[in-house]
Amino acid sequence: MRQAGRYLPEYRAVRANYSFLELCRTPDAACEVTLQPVEILGVDAAILFSDILLICDSMGCPLVLDDGGPQFPTPVRTRADVDALIVPDPEEKLGYVMEAVRKIKRSLDGKVPLIGFSGAPWTLAAYMIEGKTSRSFEKAKALLLSDEKLAEALLSKITDSIILYLNAQLAAGAQALQIFDSWAGALSPEDYAKLGAPWIERVIAGLKRDPVNPQPVIVFGVETGELLAPLSRTGADVVGVDWRVPLSVARTRVGPKVALQGNLDPTSLFLPHDILAARVQHVLREAKAAGGGHIFNLGHGITPAAPVEAARALVEFVHRGLT
Amino acid sequence: MRQAGRYLPEYRAVRANYSFLELCRTPDAACEVTLQPVEILGVDAAILFSDILLICDSMGCPLVLDDGGPQFPTPVRTRADVDALIVPDPEEKLGYVMEAVRKIKRSLDGKVPLIGFSGAPWTLAAYMIEGKTSRSFEKAKALLLSDEKLAEALLSKITDSIILYLNAQLAAGAQALQIFDSWAGALSPEDYAKLGAPWIERVIAGLKRDPVNPQPVIVFGVETGELLAPLSRTGADVVGVDWRVPLSVARTRVGPKVALQGNLDPTSLFLPHDILAARVQHVLREAKAAGGGHIFNLGHGITPAAPVEAARALVEFVHRGLT
Repeated sequence: MRQAGRYLPEYRAVRANYSFLELCRTPDAACEVTLQPVEILGVDAAILFSDILLICDSMGCPLVLDDGGPQFPTPVRTRADVDALIVPDPEEKLGYVMEAVRKIKRSLDGKVPLIGFSGAPWTLAAYMIEGKTSRSFEKAKALLLSDEKLAEALLSKITDSIILYLNAQLAAGAQALQIFDSWAGALSPEDYAKLGAPWIERVIAGLKRDPVNPQPVIVFGVETGELLAPLSRTGADVVGVDWRVPLSVARTRVGPKVALQGNLDPTSLFLPHDILAARVQHVLREAKAAGGGHIFNLGHGITPAAPVEAARALVEFVHRGLT
Repeated sequence: MRQAGRYLPEYRAVRANYSFLELCRTPDAACEVTLQPVEILGVDAAILFSDILLICDSMGCPLVLDDGGPQFPTPVRTRADVDALIVPDPEEKLGYVMEAVRKIKRSLDGKVPLIGFSGAPWTLAAYMIEGKTSRSFEKAKALLLSDEKLAEALLSKITDSIILYLNAQLAAGAQALQIFDSWAGALSPEDYAKLGAPWIERVIAGLKRDPVNPQPVIVFGVETGELLAPLSRTGADVVGVDWRVPLSVARTRVGPKVALQGNLDPTSLFLPHDILAARVQHVLREAKAAGGGHIFNLGHGITPAAPVEAARALVEFVHRGLT
């Protein structure tokens, strides 16, 4: 999950000097907020501060971020729109991200690993077609499910762009990668088998990872209960699980080989610390019952009103382990 | 699902003369829009036009509906707030609903059955505490999960109110009841076992149904993949399934005795009719594979931009059956 954010006063202090996009595009500032959760909370990894939609902008679909959330004023709606998109050279168009990765790596100095990331093809396509966030993504589904050739062309272009982008992050020093399929849950399993999982598989197959110590790849989405099996077959090393699916159940769907990540309900941070501690124990017990690898995490992003003290206590409870 | 709505020009024409709440509170108008989908689409049942939050207002938590969605300006946040709520006499406080039920029954004249409905206790509690809709319902979860006695008191009062309300709908002539736990998916299975399912069970146990031909009870929520088993044990006759869970999978969780309802992705209405027809066939095949009872429906509510022609075609495709 993104760890830096509005719940941190230190983040808000930096953010006061930049618009959100400026913050993403200013490597020193992006570096500073990336490091904040490591220093303030004591988490075991840093996750690059950025936005999944920057790559869409660099493909030629201009991104606007204001109080109404991310928007694409010229959404992708036709084959001509798809053909006009480019597969960008990431160093040229998103060089500030790789510069941030290099700065963060130097600052971290091996203390904790740095996780790079990208949106997944379906999620990026959904945003670019819809033009804004949505509950149902009906324009995106209507277009991609009624025109297979257009879907293939758009998802191919996005996939190629993501591969170059993630490889550039790896080359800049990212030690793990997380692929966010934020809107996976908008699709039925049948549609995800066409528009979702195969494209993530293609992204992962295209990564140039260290042959000796390959950087792990995490895939994550919410409302993915019925998609855990296909997600586990994408080549990912880790599958994120939201709080709706007990880890022991997730394990039955994912099989024994892939690690699980998650899955504390983020709203647990609003509970008294004794209850929060009990909930951490519950997740750890579930992870033990599930067997295989486990990365403790929230089951979804941390919310802006979350108390920092609770986030700090959470990290401490996790570090104590199963008692 | 609610069938009347903004996608119907005939609905918009009636709605132009009333605010949404006025429409709910004017039996003649509520009757008119309830009948529209039966006449225009040819569906096999009518579902009462109303709003799940009216009962909260009648309990003493004033409801405001404007362009920002439903809001409770004085949300429930303390034990004193809970104690101030009443268990309303439905004929006194919500008499217009029962009058609408009686009018609709007379107008339908046995042509198709009429389904009454209510929100489920958790969903109503979540709204009343949060004060408005939410993605995370963090205030509601924080309050109910950190204060068990308050949770018991609030959910009991809501449950008692729902029982009286649904029994009044049955007495007025409703021939089936649907309980909407719209925010079930905000809760993990562990939390749903405390705040969700047991209270629905208590509602259903409190219903005064016809001893010879008991009116069926349908429970429905979205993002309920992991909650289908507990929902099937509430005493409900039918469990609604959203489009994320194939009906054959839902059947393995629900067991053989309870019927399934659903589960076409509502955005299918935006696809060309040949694809829509194929998707109907897919649901019907899944239902056949699942075995047991099945009520064809969308997997969630119809969206305002849905083409009426597609909704009409959908009903026709379903009536043709599995080919």
